[in-house]
Amino acid sequence: MLELYHWEPNAASARVIITLKEKGLDFQSRYLDVLSFEQHSPEFLALSETGETPVLTSDGEVLTQSSFICEYLDEAFPGASLMPRDPNARWQARTWQKYVDDHLAAAVSDLAWTALGAPALKGRNGSADAAVARIPNRMLRDVWSEALAGYPAERLAKSRGRVELTITQMEADLDGRDWLAGDAFSLADIAMFSYVNYLPSVTPELVNERTAPRTMAWLARVAARPAVKAALAMARTPDPFAAAAPGPEHIRWG
Amino acid sequence: MLELYHWEPNAASARVIITLKEKGLDFQSRYLDVLSFEQHSPEFLALSETGETPVLTSDGEVLTQSSFICEYLDEAFPGASLMPRDPNARWQARTWQKYVDDHLAAAVSDLAWTALGAPALKGRNGSADAAVARIPNRMLRDVWSEALAGYPAERLAKSRGRVELTITQMEADLDGRDWLAGDAFSLADIAMFSYVNYLPSVTPELVNERTAPRTMAWLARVAARPAVKAALAMARTPDPFAAAAPGPEHIRWG
Repeated sequence: MLELYHWEPNAASARVIITLKEKGLDFQSRYLDVLSFEQHSPEFLALSETGETPVLTSDGEVLTQSSFICEYLDEAFPGASLMPRDPNARWQARTWQKYVDDHLAAAVSDLAWTALGAPALKGRNGSADAAVARIPNRMLRDVWSEALAGYPAERLAKSRGRVELTITQMEADLDGRDWLAGDAFSLADIAMFSYVNYLPSVTPELVNERTAPRTMAWLARVAARPAVKAALAMARTPDPFAAAAPGPEHIRWG
Repeated sequence: MLELYHWEPNAASARVIITLKEKGLDFQSRYLDVLSFEQHSPEFLALSETGETPVLTSDGEVLTQSSFICEYLDEAFPGASLMPRDPNARWQARTWQKYVDDHLAAAVSDLAWTALGAPALKGRNGSADAAVARIPNRMLRDVWSEALAGYPAERLAKSRGRVELTITQMEADLDGRDWLAGDAFSLADIAMFSYVNYLPSVTPELVNERTAPRTMAWLARVAARPAVKAALAMARTPDPFAAAAPGPEHIRWG
């Protein structure tokens, strides 16, 4: 049996939920409201030392790290393959996934948290500061204190620069091609969509029909897939890409 | 045709050379003397923006990032598979590789550079400072200036802590098992060996027969493999694991 601990179908949670839907797999959804800090419960921290979502359990085995959860799902179960067959394109798909893990996830999370997450949390009942003060783990508490205080302008400028680099690369790679790695939709598209889909609303001056026409067309192509629609329909909020949490880079340690 | 740009068969270069030898693949060796800064030539920087070795070219396609070069070689060519067949064990192998990429490579490089690389460079003819001043790229120059100045004690203490965590985990994982992921030798063992093999000489007080008996036995098991012997025999120095360069974490940007 597959159980997925996840938040809204955005960012890393979207990567795994879309993959599950593309493979046509049944799974038990374990929803954690990240802005209510449900990921800091002792039960969940026992599964995920850093409180990072998503976490998949497969017949009791605990799997973390979205890139490898997605490759696991693709390899362990039948259905259409979400990795290219050509070895060079497979290398390319893994390189895009790693780019998301190492660079893009943190940049988009910084910007989306600032634009969307922080205001949403401030609009909730009760003081977020008090909730953060109750986080049991000091390092997790620091991550959230820093996020609530607001990121320095220099950090946000660096994240915007990362978005510009990303879009330049995507526009080049999508020249005459529909998908990012090989001839078919793949885990590379899933990984990138789960973050790039924030950008037309979070950084509209950088990502729009004029500056990024191929990226915008690719976003629409991914969003039109039935499995992606089904994944996004699991949202409990009106728009999952209007919800955001502090970025993963700053949570990783150990 | 396969061409590999590499340094001594240690660290990341060892990962790819061992994989090539385990697969029984012919390749053209392009040796770069990292302590002579041959990786900063305009020709090589055109292949590897950060001057990081190794880089593989396969019929003209340029492949970087050791984890994915090794998976590429395993998938693109016949011969014994170096990834487990079981999906859970494949996830485990990828997780070990990522652990090397994200954490262990930088920690071991910091310690090995300090113990071995810096003294070796100082023993060469001419001033290393002058050679570093000639590095064309400012960020690469900063990496080497920082390395030549010597890393702060706090950074080295953190790297030693990382070694302790690694050995604790390895001793647990190797309890009753010969290999790190699944029942057979895999890319996980290759990735870990290429760094852990430094530790009995670089941190002998942390990694020895008493503190890490299973790790020491595993190191001997890996080193006894004919392909590993053949890889290490490509060294141009008496002992490739007595050679070290500044760590990759501090070179990555973009």
